Amino acid sequence: MAYRLKELVEKFGGEFHGDGDCQVATVATLQLAGQGDITFLSNSAYRKFLPNTNASIVIIRNSDLPSCKGNAWVVDDPYVTYARVAQLLYGSSNTAQGVHPSAVVDSSCSVANSAMVSAQCYIGANSTIAENVYIGPGCVIEDDCSVGSDSRLVANVVVRAGTVIGERAILHPGVVLGADGFGFANDAGAWLKIPQIGAVEIGDDVEIGANTTVDRGALGNTVIEEGVKLDNQIQIAHNVHIGAHTAIVACTAIAGSTVIGKHCAIGGCVGIAGHLNIVDKVQITAMSFVINSIEKSGTYSSGIPAEENRQWRKNTVRIKKLEDYAQRLRRLEGIVNNKK
Amino acid sequence: MAYRLKELVEKFGGEFHGDGDCQVATVATLQLAGQGDITFLSNSAYRKFLPNTNASIVIIRNSDLPSCKGNAWVVDDPYVTYARVAQLLYGSSNTAQGVHPSAVVDSSCSVANSAMVSAQCYIGANSTIAENVYIGPGCVIEDDCSVGSDSRLVANVVVRAGTVIGERAILHPGVVLGADGFGFANDAGAWLKIPQIGAVEIGDDVEIGANTTVDRGALGNTVIEEGVKLDNQIQIAHNVHIGAHTAIVACTAIAGSTVIGKHCAIGGCVGIAGHLNIVDKVQITAMSFVINSIEKSGTYSSGIPAEENRQWRKNTVRIKKLEDYAQRLRRLEGIVNNKK
Amino acid sequence: MAYRLKELVEKFGGEFHGDGDCQVATVATLQLAGQGDITFLSNSAYRKFLPNTNASIVIIRNSDLPSCKGNAWVVDDPYVTYARVAQLLYGSSNTAQGVHPSAVVDSSCSVANSAMVSAQCYIGANSTIAENVYIGPGCVIEDDCSVGSDSRLVANVVVRAGTVIGERAILHPGVVLGADGFGFANDAGAWLKIPQIGAVEIGDDVEIGANTTVDRGALGNTVIEEGVKLDNQIQIAHNVHIGAHTAIVACTAIAGSTVIGKHCAIGGCVGIAGHLNIVDKVQITAMSFVINSIEKSGTYSSGIPAEENRQWRKNTVRIKKLEDYAQRLRRLEGIVNNKK
Repeated sequence: MAYRLKELVEKFGGEFHGDGDCQVATVATLQLAGQGDITFLSNSAYRKFLPNTNASIVIIRNSDLPSCKGNAWVVDDPYVTYARVAQLLYGSSNTAQGVHPSAVVDSSCSVANSAMVSAQCYIGANSTIAENVYIGPGCVIEDDCSVGSDSRLVANVVVRAGTVIGERAILHPGVVLGADGFGFANDAGAWLKIPQIGAVEIGDDVEIGANTTVDRGALGNTVIEEGVKLDNQIQIAHNVHIGAHTAIVACTAIAGSTVIGKHCAIGGCVGIAGHLNIVDKVQITAMSFVINSIEKSGTYSSGIPAEENRQWRKNTVRIKKLEDYAQRLRRLEGIVNNKK
Repeated sequence: MAYRLKELVEKFGGEFHGDGDCQVATVATLQLAGQGDITFLSNSAYRKFLPNTNASIVIIRNSDLPSCKGNAWVVDDPYVTYARVAQLLYGSSNTAQGVHPSAVVDSSCSVANSAMVSAQCYIGANSTIAENVYIGPGCVIEDDCSVGSDSRLVANVVVRAGTVIGERAILHPGVVLGADGFGFANDAGAWLKIPQIGAVEIGDDVEIGANTTVDRGALGNTVIEEGVKLDNQIQIAHNVHIGAHTAIVACTAIAGSTVIGKHCAIGGCVGIAGHLNIVDKVQITAMSFVINSIEKSGTYSSGIPAEENRQWRKNTVRIKKLEDYAQRLRRLEGIVNNKK
Repeated sequence: MAYRLKELVEKFGGEFHGDGDCQVATVATLQLAGQGDITFLSNSAYRKFLPNTNASIVIIRNSDLPSCKGNAWVVDDPYVTYARVAQLLYGSSNTAQGVHPSAVVDSSCSVANSAMVSAQCYIGANSTIAENVYIGPGCVIEDDCSVGSDSRLVANVVVRAGTVIGERAILHPGVVLGADGFGFANDAGAWLKIPQIGAVEIGDDVEIGANTTVDRGALGNTVIEEGVKLDNQIQIAHNVHIGAHTAIVACTAIAGSTVIGKHCAIGGCVGIAGHLNIVDKVQITAMSFVINSIEKSGTYSSGIPAEENRQWRKNTVRIKKLEDYAQRLRRLEGIVNNKK
């Protein structure tokens, strides 16, 4: 479906310069956009492409208006406005409803009429699927779960017993919610399993990336608050609590019982130890290793950037000698200071 | 089902103080426990909650008895006793049997009468499913596999051809056993696949976490011995051998042909290179990178704790200058020592 | 099927020493091989097993011929020749064809007669499955995908809408292609989803390991060129482009829009930041963290090898003091140099 520039401005705010009747139906990058495309300029690295773009409409900041030869839509935050337009143009058009004949749904479940349960799914006893939910092919939902309205489980998602999922959640393929946490008592060398009897709670507007795992609580629940965004292949251990609107990039792992605040931004491949407390608005850069609670908002890091292997091998040797260097430095200071 | 304190003591040992007829049916934490709950005190960080707990029974060490106002069950290791009680109260109650009509099971398979094969499963030719096995929804078991009695494949587990799984194993959702190892010969720039013709052997009482992968051997088998516990999203490459009762935390990766001893404890996000030998009772802390064999039991580490980004950026620069510092230090020592 | 030594030499080149009529049907290691096995010596660490091997044929370099008592097949690169022979002996013998009755395939799909669609699969509208493709149990292929001839999707693979897969590709269990990239605009603290409207392109002869995820592009496609080999549990973010014949070991993560050249070799557990450019023939060792573009072919590293925890704890403290040491060193130099 196509929209006119003036319609878009009316819907989402800002002001336009140029032809308000210009129509767009698709999005593209500044470089590749052509007739009928809307695009945006947010990251200054792409500013060089603005003068020559062939897009029908460009969403820009006011300061970029002089360089824009075509139809411009001026807003405060072009990326946010682009997100809204792209959602309008590419919003999920899924209107399928009903339970596919190959799906196996326990007769005790409540599945809303507007929901879709796709082929090859299994839904256990006493689970509730709300209005407009989409359960994609191959998903497994065990007993006593609930999936809030407008949520999407894309494909091959596993939701174990007792999990509660809010509204408008998106769970990408291979997500596992509610698997047993890693809890064992050591009994004379052998490991005795601690039954994991808590559950998982997923808030509204949570998105969880492909193959990410969120374990059920040991006692009490693992909680992902509303608006949290988890990328692919993240591991959330038992009894972790993630505050609202925190975003975590791929392959990060959070150990058991750690509490993470609201509006945090955690990079990829980060490891966070268990039983820590991280306050609101903390940023942790990629590949960091967090072993202490963080009590002050700010940015934290420990990843070491790669360099040429020849140089790096020397450095790793020298890191091992650091204590020796420190002692020799102190000794030298003693000698030199005595002579002063 | 509820149990009396004196019944539990008779079953699992220790001694009780208070009302031996007191009944419990559920577990809870010291803080949240109420009437009918049994709880435990093992980690001293929670000792402060002991005097005011409302639990019907608390499992404690003898030294904590003076602070316990209610019914106490005194044992040597409260966590181990708690594990046994929780298993008693929450043990799997799965009694379903039979093959779901939607499951596809090759006619050449042997499936015990007491086993359950759930909806949407596939089991290939000549595989054997022993007594009381539970194969959850969406599992795929290829040809020539065997699953030992009382094992559980929770959901969407994939077991490739020729895999042997022991008794009482638990495989969580998304586990993949027996995928091809990563083996290629470089033929003038292009990669030539080395057929991976070994298999995977999983011992008794092994538990494997969600989305963990264990590759089949190239030649010979990949072996996980009895009692090993693997957390989520672990990668075990071809021909790795993990000794009995070793536990490995989430997101750790072990490269090909490495042999790990018995009773090791390996933290999360660890990387272990290939073709190494790690002896029994080695502990490796989280985020470590192991590139040499470990020949002595003990604890090994290399993860660097995160600190404020501003400080960390300075340190990373200085690490790169370490060789320069070392040379300057040596030069200074030369000068100063000559003057002495 | 068994092959004679002289047949093999004729097929794959090199020359033989000993009985050209000797037959082999199976492969084994130098140590374990017996009558009817063919083996190889490539890695010098195994040279000690050559004199006593019981293999019927050993593939060796000319320089090892003096130590070989049995039938020898002399070639330039024994590992490459071994790969070819093992492929010959163990090549996929799958000859099953057709669509299993439990599979759900949209009537608008084109499935070649020689293709196999296994039990419990789902294939959406307008997808194309070419000749000799094997779609294993539990796979989900959404709308508008195409799978090139002779490709194998082993089991429980998810291929999202619009993905294009080349010929002879192998996708191991749990692979997810085309899940949404991690793209959000921050709108006053809440995250607004950026629709991910690009797709995924997988070239010919690509192999992708178990539980690896390749996200679809935000705008434009994520591209894996021909001959790329990805191990298990790798994360490829949106709009990444990986050049032909690059190999990446398990658990590595590549952030969005990074371009990696051809013939690179990237170790396991590596983290590569977004928007970088890495040229051809770069090697990155395991556990490295790449935050800058790499403009020169070579080997790059930053992983720190583990050592005894007691020693390591001292070093981490000293790393934090590096700036202090540097300043003290400079001060000392000032004093000493002034005195010279």
